[in-house]
Amino acid sequence: MTPQTSGIDARFALARTIAKEAGAVALGYFNTRDTLVVETKRDPQDVVSIADREVENLIRARVADLHAADGFLGEEYGLVEGHSGYTWVVDPIDGTSPFVNGMPNWCVSIAVLRGGEPVVGVIFSPCHDELYAAAKGNGATLNGKPLSLDQSRTIRNGVTGIGANNYVAPAVVAKTVENLLEAGGNFIRNGSGALMLAYVAAGRLVGYYEPYMHAWDCLAGYCLVKEAGGWYHPFPTDGGRLTKGAPVLAAGPGAREDLAKIAGLTA
Amino acid sequence: MTPQTSGIDARFALARTIAKEAGAVALGYFNTRDTLVVETKRDPQDVVSIADREVENLIRARVADLHAADGFLGEEYGLVEGHSGYTWVVDPIDGTSPFVNGMPNWCVSIAVLRGGEPVVGVIFSPCHDELYAAAKGNGATLNGKPLSLDQSRTIRNGVTGIGANNYVAPAVVAKTVENLLEAGGNFIRNGSGALMLAYVAAGRLVGYYEPYMHAWDCLAGYCLVKEAGGWYHPFPTDGGRLTKGAPVLAAGPGAREDLAKIAGLTA
Repeated sequence: MTPQTSGIDARFALARTIAKEAGAVALGYFNTRDTLVVETKRDPQDVVSIADREVENLIRARVADLHAADGFLGEEYGLVEGHSGYTWVVDPIDGTSPFVNGMPNWCVSIAVLRGGEPVVGVIFSPCHDELYAAAKGNGATLNGKPLSLDQSRTIRNGVTGIGANNYVAPAVVAKTVENLLEAGGNFIRNGSGALMLAYVAAGRLVGYYEPYMHAWDCLAGYCLVKEAGGWYHPFPTDGGRLTKGAPVLAAGPGAREDLAKIAGLTA
Repeated sequence: MTPQTSGIDARFALARTIAKEAGAVALGYFNTRDTLVVETKRDPQDVVSIADREVENLIRARVADLHAADGFLGEEYGLVEGHSGYTWVVDPIDGTSPFVNGMPNWCVSIAVLRGGEPVVGVIFSPCHDELYAAAKGNGATLNGKPLSLDQSRTIRNGVTGIGANNYVAPAVVAKTVENLLEAGGNFIRNGSGALMLAYVAAGRLVGYYEPYMHAWDCLAGYCLVKEAGGWYHPFPTDGGRLTKGAPVLAAGPGAREDLAKIAGLTA
């Protein structure tokens, strides 16, 4: 086996290639979304379309071609266990709600785990042509430019991303908003948790918090944030927990403690 | 006087031309934002830069060239009264916080009032190259394509935009979020109220609510929403009230009643 076909490097290169290919396919659906049939899942706000499914199938096929022994977890079709020690964790379109409604804040999110740790994180935002890429020990980049977080950015002089979904009680989401504003913070919610995590890695947001998210929403972003010099609250990946939800929190160094306090998590 | 130099049509054409020129200048600053000096206004979250000021000066100068008797209200330099019956109301960069932090959700917002009513509304999103344009009785367009709102879209099957700022108590913002989620809604806050109002006109959001906004944030969006077939809660423009803040609510026909109830306003 050559270095190109084994280990993190090979998977990192493949993840970048696939993210751009998948993003182009998704963008094609986005640009013709008037003809998309949109279905709902858990409730009328939880939407999915043929674009999500087709893009996930494309990514699965590309991974299987080169790394047939790797595990694969996708949002739409679930987990297939592997036996190489590597598992791909993919959200084909993170931000399906913005996507089907015609807003540009959605992305393709691809993580690769080894020993439960996200060692590759690639997020591609097709509407903005931005590729966020990180691999363990290699740092993080945005369109090839290295990302490095700044200790001086806090919740008080920067913006925090927040998320919400139908697993979390409205009062809990509201309380998070209130606590953040009371602490002098400011928030956005652009509709894509993965993209907001990429923004944390890029220093555009000082942190991101969502009380309950799935692995495919956060693990690529987690790798990006860590490699850019930030911190994340661990996501449980062992045993059968990879397919369950958990709280998600990631932050730059200057916002870590304040956001952990607001989220009621250990920094 | 020819039709090109008088009335709504002339101002509508000029507003579109200026919005694109101003947007290009702002985009230049955005792409070199590492060198921007950012100052704060009311608190550390309320930011302004040379880009806001230069873009407002550009728009003021272009209007004065052709319509010297028109009034002009800009966010950065305030109101100059006119005597033509027309008043321009401009936010040179709506979404300064996303702008200085490197996020694409900001826009140039230009309204023209006649008799206190917004009869022209033009919003340009440079990062997405999207020009939203409306004039009274002419309909609304996005990059030239007519916009028409759909009665079947409600807060329960669509997304609502919300806004917040340091004039509004955190508990009030939190309660709005809670009430919207409890009613089966879903929200985004992309950081630019004007852009979210344009999204209402485009049917991407079913409505937009912010408890307190200024005229320059909302009047262009209001004209767009109305011309696309939606509704807005009147903004007080008479007497000295044009420079004061007020609640802002705009919605498509299927979301109007639900959002008015959530906002505690009369539909």
